[in-house]
Amino acid sequence: MTNPAYGRLKARFARIGALEEAAGILRWDESVVMPVGGAHARGEQLAALAGVTHELLTAPEMADDLAAAEAAGDWDGPNLALMRRAHARATALPVALVEAVARANTACEKVWREARRDADFAKVAKLLTEVVRLQREVASGLAARLDLDPYDALMDGYQPGIGAADVEPVFEAYAGWLATALPRAEALQARRPAPVPLEGPFDAELQEKLCRWLSERLGLEPGHARLDVSAHPFCGGHPTDIRITTAYDEDNVAKAVLGVLHETGHALYERGLPAAWSRQPVGAAAGMAAHESQSLIVEMQACRSDAFLGFLGRELADGFGLPEAATSAANLARIWRRVARGFIRVDADEMTYPAHVLLRFRLERAMIRGELEVPDLPAAWNEGLRGLLGIVPPDDARGCLQDIHWHDGAFGYFPSYTLGAMAAAQLMAAIRRDLPDLDAALAEGDLSGMLRWLNLRVHGQGARLGFQDLLRHATGKPLDPADFTAHLARRYLDG
Amino acid sequence: MTNPAYGRLKARFARIGALEEAAGILRWDESVVMPVGGAHARGEQLAALAGVTHELLTAPEMADDLAAAEAAGDWDGPNLALMRRAHARATALPVALVEAVARANTACEKVWREARRDADFAKVAKLLTEVVRLQREVASGLAARLDLDPYDALMDGYQPGIGAADVEPVFEAYAGWLATALPRAEALQARRPAPVPLEGPFDAELQEKLCRWLSERLGLEPGHARLDVSAHPFCGGHPTDIRITTAYDEDNVAKAVLGVLHETGHALYERGLPAAWSRQPVGAAAGMAAHESQSLIVEMQACRSDAFLGFLGRELADGFGLPEAATSAANLARIWRRVARGFIRVDADEMTYPAHVLLRFRLERAMIRGELEVPDLPAAWNEGLRGLLGIVPPDDARGCLQDIHWHDGAFGYFPSYTLGAMAAAQLMAAIRRDLPDLDAALAEGDLSGMLRWLNLRVHGQGARLGFQDLLRHATGKPLDPADFTAHLARRYLDG
Repeated sequence: MTNPAYGRLKARFARIGALEEAAGILRWDESVVMPVGGAHARGEQLAALAGVTHELLTAPEMADDLAAAEAAGDWDGPNLALMRRAHARATALPVALVEAVARANTACEKVWREARRDADFAKVAKLLTEVVRLQREVASGLAARLDLDPYDALMDGYQPGIGAADVEPVFEAYAGWLATALPRAEALQARRPAPVPLEGPFDAELQEKLCRWLSERLGLEPGHARLDVSAHPFCGGHPTDIRITTAYDEDNVAKAVLGVLHETGHALYERGLPAAWSRQPVGAAAGMAAHESQSLIVEMQACRSDAFLGFLGRELADGFGLPEAATSAANLARIWRRVARGFIRVDADEMTYPAHVLLRFRLERAMIRGELEVPDLPAAWNEGLRGLLGIVPPDDARGCLQDIHWHDGAFGYFPSYTLGAMAAAQLMAAIRRDLPDLDAALAEGDLSGMLRWLNLRVHGQGARLGFQDLLRHATGKPLDPADFTAHLARRYLDG
Repeated sequence: MTNPAYGRLKARFARIGALEEAAGILRWDESVVMPVGGAHARGEQLAALAGVTHELLTAPEMADDLAAAEAAGDWDGPNLALMRRAHARATALPVALVEAVARANTACEKVWREARRDADFAKVAKLLTEVVRLQREVASGLAARLDLDPYDALMDGYQPGIGAADVEPVFEAYAGWLATALPRAEALQARRPAPVPLEGPFDAELQEKLCRWLSERLGLEPGHARLDVSAHPFCGGHPTDIRITTAYDEDNVAKAVLGVLHETGHALYERGLPAAWSRQPVGAAAGMAAHESQSLIVEMQACRSDAFLGFLGRELADGFGLPEAATSAANLARIWRRVARGFIRVDADEMTYPAHVLLRFRLERAMIRGELEVPDLPAAWNEGLRGLLGIVPPDDARGCLQDIHWHDGAFGYFPSYTLGAMAAAQLMAAIRRDLPDLDAALAEGDLSGMLRWLNLRVHGQGARLGFQDLLRHATGKPLDPADFTAHLARRYLDG
């Protein structure tokens, strides 16, 4: 079913994959253990790795092999298709444009930090204008090569095969639902008792011990994973050598605990990828939205369920000597499932989070299409948030300056968060149909049954199915926002 | 003074250097933090990096550039020469031989662990015979390309420009001196009081705190270095991001403390390499013997001096509440400068250590020359050690099986240890001439004056001078064993 040209391509991708893994470990090292003085050298090391990897991916021999390659079947077929896609994306843009983008992104991101600190959009507007101008060029270049709409060509970089046409109807359906659901949820919440706060201080070592224990309890084996500290949490490494990080705040135990549950979801996906296809495109995760679905199905669907909160509350009570009034499942739910109209995406609750994403999706698509210019962004942002949540940020630091993404050249990424949240709800609905005793297991902190299901239907599929086909394969239908709104209704609108 | 071909070579070596640094960080990670389950993937990552680096070093365009390159001056001239040497070594051997060597070394090293455990040389003899056979081929191949004697071609891989003719006379001069000096040192030692032992337990965290403090006190800045734990101590990383390791034994504080002083010596050399020549061959350390001279000048010359032992004793007394009888400089000298005829190289004292190296130098040269065959190695070893130290190992585990080196294919490396020890003594003699107040500084744990001297005359020279020229530049003469024996005489034979 395959030929020698395809064999050569597999060997080439095995090498590219190993070099990308090396870069991943260097980035982990940079965030977790590197002395500050090593920053410049690390930049050179990562640049050399990126350069070599790019050359391997764009070599003329590779184009010849792609033209001659033959592969078919459930795995080799999609693998070759993904190789072609990777090569097309890597060769679509002139080197001068790629370099200009890197320079513009770096310059803008640096000034953005000051602009956000000072809540002064004017400071970064000019540099962001250049970033947007270049992203439009990138989008057109990729669009021409990939035969996609320009904005879709950017989205495709994060979640292959997903475009605005997949996103827009499900996002708009959610928005329509939210308009009536949010006031109802708020009214219900107002009638409930005020939550009893979790009062610290929470010793960082005890937090780490609990987080490590929880992560193992969820199924992440210590022989294949580490948990460390970094300024911004992430999940990196290799499926056999996973590196997750968190940060400990002695006043706020939720930050690390919920953060580690989230990263453990990402980690379990990586652990479950098909080892036989390691370092092949088809053996990787199915995209950023698919990845987010796996962190959210663990953090939001499983671990914020009433059943799991009962288990987690007992662990918190034991670990930190907290009173039952604070650690009861009902009270934890009142703290960790609190709905609030806020300005900041990363602080948003599960119900309103997609509104923040929808706002960004609308604005970034308009910017790429040339329908919105950077100087008009703050006003459009404030108007958009008012329309979705009825609130207006008091300044741009809490408005269009809050996220790094655009200022670092990432356009088309935001939808992945909400696609992931919706997919998580859809997968969980299917799991609950197949595993009627799920809550009994979650009440013991036992995710093993759910993980076996996910392993079979999601993790172990690698990237052989696109996002929509993966959902079809796992749940019998493509992305359906009804499962997400039904989940939210059960959790936030049931009296 | 240079031309475009040379410029292209510099860019090529900058990339090679950055990839080698990446591999160094991955090896550090493997030894210090990697989960055990990541071993296989790490092997693939390192193999990919080695493969890419080798291809960059052996590319046909590089041969063209080397033929066309022009460079002169104190730095560019030696840099080009070192580029030619690196390319010649990388291309001297057929790929099939390089692969056979890698396979044979791995197979032999694995079985050697069992053979040593069981003190059963017969177990590994056949595999070691194959390793030696291949090393003879390697030596001939390199010798033909480099126009060197075969054994010298192996030595040159560890300490460029040094061959048996440099080593033999200085080693034999030492052996002649030792024959009368050792009995005298033993007699003197026997008349002194028995040392008061340093009695633990020594809390590992307190040891780490002391080691870190000492390393900083010696001049290693925490913003550019880490100290971690690994099974075998080493120094790795990049000059701006040094990684040293040690292991803590709660019964034996000397192991970590003296080990960290040793690794700090290596680290300070790396820190002092010329930053302007980073990632160029001329900007690297001048070879393994030069590197060992820098660890030993810190550990053996400076830190085991009477002056520094006074300082270190106070720190040990403060850190662990030890009695003055144990931590006085005189008592520490009696413990840490004790002479003893032993079987094990790594446990040997400063005076007899070179005898262990001389034994190995004689035997490995004879093996490479075809004058000694593997089945005859145990007898030759025992006979050789009897001749040098008058003792015979009770079994091969304490004889020819004790070191990993030969069983892992490393022939020509052993002399570096003693070349380093001799060079350290020679450099220290020159430093003492230039800095008459050195002992007053060492008594305060202050190595800054000595370091400035070394920085100027050794570290900052990179690899632009060969080992002998480096010594000439720094001390006015090539390697002279008289400084080493004079040092030993002062320390071990002065009444």
